[in-house]
Amino acid sequence: MLRNGLIGFGYWGSSLARNFQTAPASVLASICDSDPERIAQAAALYPGSTTTPSANDLIGDPDLAAIAIATPPATHFPLAMAALKAGKHVWIEKPMACSSSEAASLVEEARARNLVLMVDHTFVYSPAVRKIRELIQGGELGSLYYYDSVRTNLGRFQNDAGVLWDLAYHDLAILDYLLDQQPAQVSAHGAAHLGDRHEVSYLTLEYPSGFHAHVHVSWLTPVKVRRVMLAGSKRMLAWNDLESARKLEIYDHSVSAAASPGKEEGQRRIGYRAGELHIPWLEVSEPLQNAVRHFIDCVQTGARPLTDGESGLRVTKILEQAQETAGAGQ
Amino acid sequence: MLRNGLIGFGYWGSSLARNFQTAPASVLASICDSDPERIAQAAALYPGSTTTPSANDLIGDPDLAAIAIATPPATHFPLAMAALKAGKHVWIEKPMACSSSEAASLVEEARARNLVLMVDHTFVYSPAVRKIRELIQGGELGSLYYYDSVRTNLGRFQNDAGVLWDLAYHDLAILDYLLDQQPAQVSAHGAAHLGDRHEVSYLTLEYPSGFHAHVHVSWLTPVKVRRVMLAGSKRMLAWNDLESARKLEIYDHSVSAAASPGKEEGQRRIGYRAGELHIPWLEVSEPLQNAVRHFIDCVQTGARPLTDGESGLRVTKILEQAQETAGAGQ
Amino acid sequence: MLRNGLIGFGYWGSSLARNFQTAPASVLASICDSDPERIAQAAALYPGSTTTPSANDLIGDPDLAAIAIATPPATHFPLAMAALKAGKHVWIEKPMACSSSEAASLVEEARARNLVLMVDHTFVYSPAVRKIRELIQGGELGSLYYYDSVRTNLGRFQNDAGVLWDLAYHDLAILDYLLDQQPAQVSAHGAAHLGDRHEVSYLTLEYPSGFHAHVHVSWLTPVKVRRVMLAGSKRMLAWNDLESARKLEIYDHSVSAAASPGKEEGQRRIGYRAGELHIPWLEVSEPLQNAVRHFIDCVQTGARPLTDGESGLRVTKILEQAQETAGAGQ
Amino acid sequence: MLRNGLIGFGYWGSSLARNFQTAPASVLASICDSDPERIAQAAALYPGSTTTPSANDLIGDPDLAAIAIATPPATHFPLAMAALKAGKHVWIEKPMACSSSEAASLVEEARARNLVLMVDHTFVYSPAVRKIRELIQGGELGSLYYYDSVRTNLGRFQNDAGVLWDLAYHDLAILDYLLDQQPAQVSAHGAAHLGDRHEVSYLTLEYPSGFHAHVHVSWLTPVKVRRVMLAGSKRMLAWNDLESARKLEIYDHSVSAAASPGKEEGQRRIGYRAGELHIPWLEVSEPLQNAVRHFIDCVQTGARPLTDGESGLRVTKILEQAQETAGAGQ
Repeated sequence: MLRNGLIGFGYWGSSLARNFQTAPASVLASICDSDPERIAQAAALYPGSTTTPSANDLIGDPDLAAIAIATPPATHFPLAMAALKAGKHVWIEKPMACSSSEAASLVEEARARNLVLMVDHTFVYSPAVRKIRELIQGGELGSLYYYDSVRTNLGRFQNDAGVLWDLAYHDLAILDYLLDQQPAQVSAHGAAHLGDRHEVSYLTLEYPSGFHAHVHVSWLTPVKVRRVMLAGSKRMLAWNDLESARKLEIYDHSVSAAASPGKEEGQRRIGYRAGELHIPWLEVSEPLQNAVRHFIDCVQTGARPLTDGESGLRVTKILEQAQETAGAGQ
Repeated sequence: MLRNGLIGFGYWGSSLARNFQTAPASVLASICDSDPERIAQAAALYPGSTTTPSANDLIGDPDLAAIAIATPPATHFPLAMAALKAGKHVWIEKPMACSSSEAASLVEEARARNLVLMVDHTFVYSPAVRKIRELIQGGELGSLYYYDSVRTNLGRFQNDAGVLWDLAYHDLAILDYLLDQQPAQVSAHGAAHLGDRHEVSYLTLEYPSGFHAHVHVSWLTPVKVRRVMLAGSKRMLAWNDLESARKLEIYDHSVSAAASPGKEEGQRRIGYRAGELHIPWLEVSEPLQNAVRHFIDCVQTGARPLTDGESGLRVTKILEQAQETAGAGQ
Repeated sequence: MLRNGLIGFGYWGSSLARNFQTAPASVLASICDSDPERIAQAAALYPGSTTTPSANDLIGDPDLAAIAIATPPATHFPLAMAALKAGKHVWIEKPMACSSSEAASLVEEARARNLVLMVDHTFVYSPAVRKIRELIQGGELGSLYYYDSVRTNLGRFQNDAGVLWDLAYHDLAILDYLLDQQPAQVSAHGAAHLGDRHEVSYLTLEYPSGFHAHVHVSWLTPVKVRRVMLAGSKRMLAWNDLESARKLEIYDHSVSAAASPGKEEGQRRIGYRAGELHIPWLEVSEPLQNAVRHFIDCVQTGARPLTDGESGLRVTKILEQAQETAGAGQ
Repeated sequence: MLRNGLIGFGYWGSSLARNFQTAPASVLASICDSDPERIAQAAALYPGSTTTPSANDLIGDPDLAAIAIATPPATHFPLAMAALKAGKHVWIEKPMACSSSEAASLVEEARARNLVLMVDHTFVYSPAVRKIRELIQGGELGSLYYYDSVRTNLGRFQNDAGVLWDLAYHDLAILDYLLDQQPAQVSAHGAAHLGDRHEVSYLTLEYPSGFHAHVHVSWLTPVKVRRVMLAGSKRMLAWNDLESARKLEIYDHSVSAAASPGKEEGQRRIGYRAGELHIPWLEVSEPLQNAVRHFIDCVQTGARPLTDGESGLRVTKILEQAQETAGAGQ
């Protein structure tokens, strides 16, 4: 039975608690939060767990094998480092740290001590993203042209960082999982209309193969959108994460430079074929549950997590590059 | 009765023909196209009009007061210049020319000869864009934050220029009509996956007031989208041109930097209020019909068209700037 | 070259005119309408056609091979009968007559004179309905359970008859084409809130095989809907005629009485499997164009039209039965 | 502190448990379920509650003030009657009983003992239905024409009764709350394609005022729909319960018998005006939470619940009438 501790019982932390508690071979032994109201809630919901306002109580507890960290980003690095130094396996919310040098130290510490360090790139554990990777690997999409993502909503403004770190992070984590290459060029634009952090940002990535990615994120848009378009030479797909029965649409459209000239003057010699639209059946499973179980499995077997510290580090590096081109406000 | 000639009887040209023919006080006297099949079609549909394969027949016809040009972009400048020099009022499809210096010569020629030169910025004559301008002018949106546009579809690749000139042009023409300022900074990214012109482009405009615009255009997207988001401090709106009864959605949401601290740690001190959604009733009218009638009216009264040569020149200049930052392929 | 006449140049009549004029081997020789404004419009658009306010001019014209009738329903029978008696092939808008006895006389007259009598059941000539028939015939849907249709909008109230005759007619024509059986039981409910004709009606058909159909039609609904659901034991489909790229959705869901008991108390022993959703590519063609060309073809070859007088008669009979159960107002 | 017991810890029962436990001044003292797995789950989640497989333990417990019954319909009557006879206030899931005579006995028993008897008509406690009632009462819709509801999905087949009792029940409960009149005529059609209960049903209600209601329910439809249309002479509204931000759409359309004749022949003299569409902001609250708190409040103050036994009895009577016209299978 794996004994886990959780630091941070906010919105996401309480979901983590549920998943650590209900996973097989796992128990949520301790919960920490500095807010008295939250810690009271935690005590009521998890009468079998110890609750405490002090993170050190968990870090110093010799009976805990692993610690999950779901606190504000600025505290991720010190808490994770202390937990690793205390010999705990660590689950950490994204972003794993506020700079790539911090992220690199965590990776190094985990490697030196042979501990599992997993970053919560939740979407990687969703049936839709799994299916997309399967399609890419199976050659179903042909050679890849681009990834275009829109993640917008109104509100949920964050203090610690701009919207790139909050929302574009997800796309970078997804791309890290989907592709076998890293971007060669990164640039971003953003605007801060209300505070000192960008509420709207546009991120562009260019890859060595000619593939490119564009990500539009916003906290200042009246409509909630979570939509990704991924186009290849053989097929194109649209992933709408807000849909239930139609999350993934696969268009059997192909486009190619054609030999025969177009009839219409000024029309290019590019042929395209529009075909069927196909919506695969996706397993219904909770991504966070899949992720927590994967972590527990890695701790028990010593396997390397799919979204280990190095994937978190790679994403952090790209965000730092984006930040440099976008200027202040990120 | 205004006697008009039309050069170019392709897809858009045939719509122009219908509108010039059915407008009050106007007659479509001559039609020119170099394609024998099209000219035969024109003759069948407009038995009262002269048809010819030669543009010079129209330009040299002393009975024509105005000439509409709906040919491929590369021919716009020479045809328009010849028509102006022959003393004709000119309606020209967008883009009015392939460079701002050509566009400037047309503007100059029309001014020197006191002729009407109108560029077909069709969306400016649509009920939706008219309503948006009315909302801005009336202060209903508050101070403006951003304009975000997505215009994508599969195919209709053009030879003459990349997708920026084909699709982002529309957004620039709309912004030229909606705003009283010109962008201070223009930049673009794009990619040519199939030919030598960009099929996907992203354009960013920054304005002196802090307002920014972003335009995503693509010929390589399986889903046709024509969607604009315009956000201000008092209200936000979404314009979906593919909808019929719900083209314009006005969100009574407001966002502002708030004094009181947020409860959640890491949550920013920005307040927002989500309110009603309101879909105004829009007059049903064909934008192109409105535009053609406006042109005829300008010719008859000597009024300056809403989308005169200078507006076309301003848009052309922005596209040239975009092209410089995006590199080859535009 | 088939010489056709057209009686009635209203909204639908003018579409017919265009299709008779542009069909190969066909010419629209004469147009009749009693409204002076319309006949003037017809003359302007079809300068090669004779125009007249008198239907008798067309019926008595020995040079016309066929006459299309697109006048208000009450005039269908006398005009069609006169045209048949004058030896013309007849295209007639739906409903072909106001009673089944009138419809039967037309069928009889056409048969006796060996003339083509075609009723304009336009949807039968649409790619979507063609595809649905193909799926049924190929056994792809399994044994059929039901057809459920909703056709609603606001306005376009008709004087001659209630909404059943206007809108439910389409479903009856489609069912006549799709199925090999006729309903054993017909019943309808309706309500007249504003005038003396039902503006909202519900029609139920029960077939010998156990299949049933339900049709909800309304002129008094704020949202325009044209949606049909067709369920079988192997697959189910949804047809939304207002969609462009996604008219037909085929659900690979199957339902069957299962042997194993459900776990949940009170849950029935019926198993179902939810599978993929598949949206076939449909040819883009105008149903009315297909129908007009089919008519011309039948006239030239002597073939029997897919939607001949007998199909119109069968539909008329069902509407009469529905009317009897729904009471006044139909 | 009100001490409550819960009989039935299935899908809905576990939601009830959470709401009884977290409501102010209420505690979930006892939970009963005959299934060992469920009762173990209940014990784990509510360590402070007594758990038992025997309903009698709860009914005989003198410390419980109220009992909530969330078992299969056939057991509702005996359990509720025993609870009332034991002097408990009773919350009962819909349908309150399997016949109107059973329902009437429960109403009588509760009245005689002066106990609260509340039927869980959850939708009555939803912000959308509350808003609809407010609009009707305020005269915003004018005089009411019709209510049209579609509730379809695939699966969740019930054993105890046909789909009318499962899904159309909701519409009857909503209508009971919205209107001040009872239907004068009730009829239903249905079909059982797989088992011995109707999986698809159509229900028609005619009211003395001329208002009519139609309800289409199905367990055999591939698309989940929960959509109600309510039309009046001044405005019309559409309620889509599956939407989050746009549950209620109010159309400012009005229709009236007009004096001036329509231009188009065969067009009726009915005028209509299409206006704006307005989507009100609705409070975000959980209907079941509102309902549970209302029940607790009624128990404490002696107030009569909005959805008391008599409303449950009225709905049951209508379902019985429907059942008689629809024949076996209901």
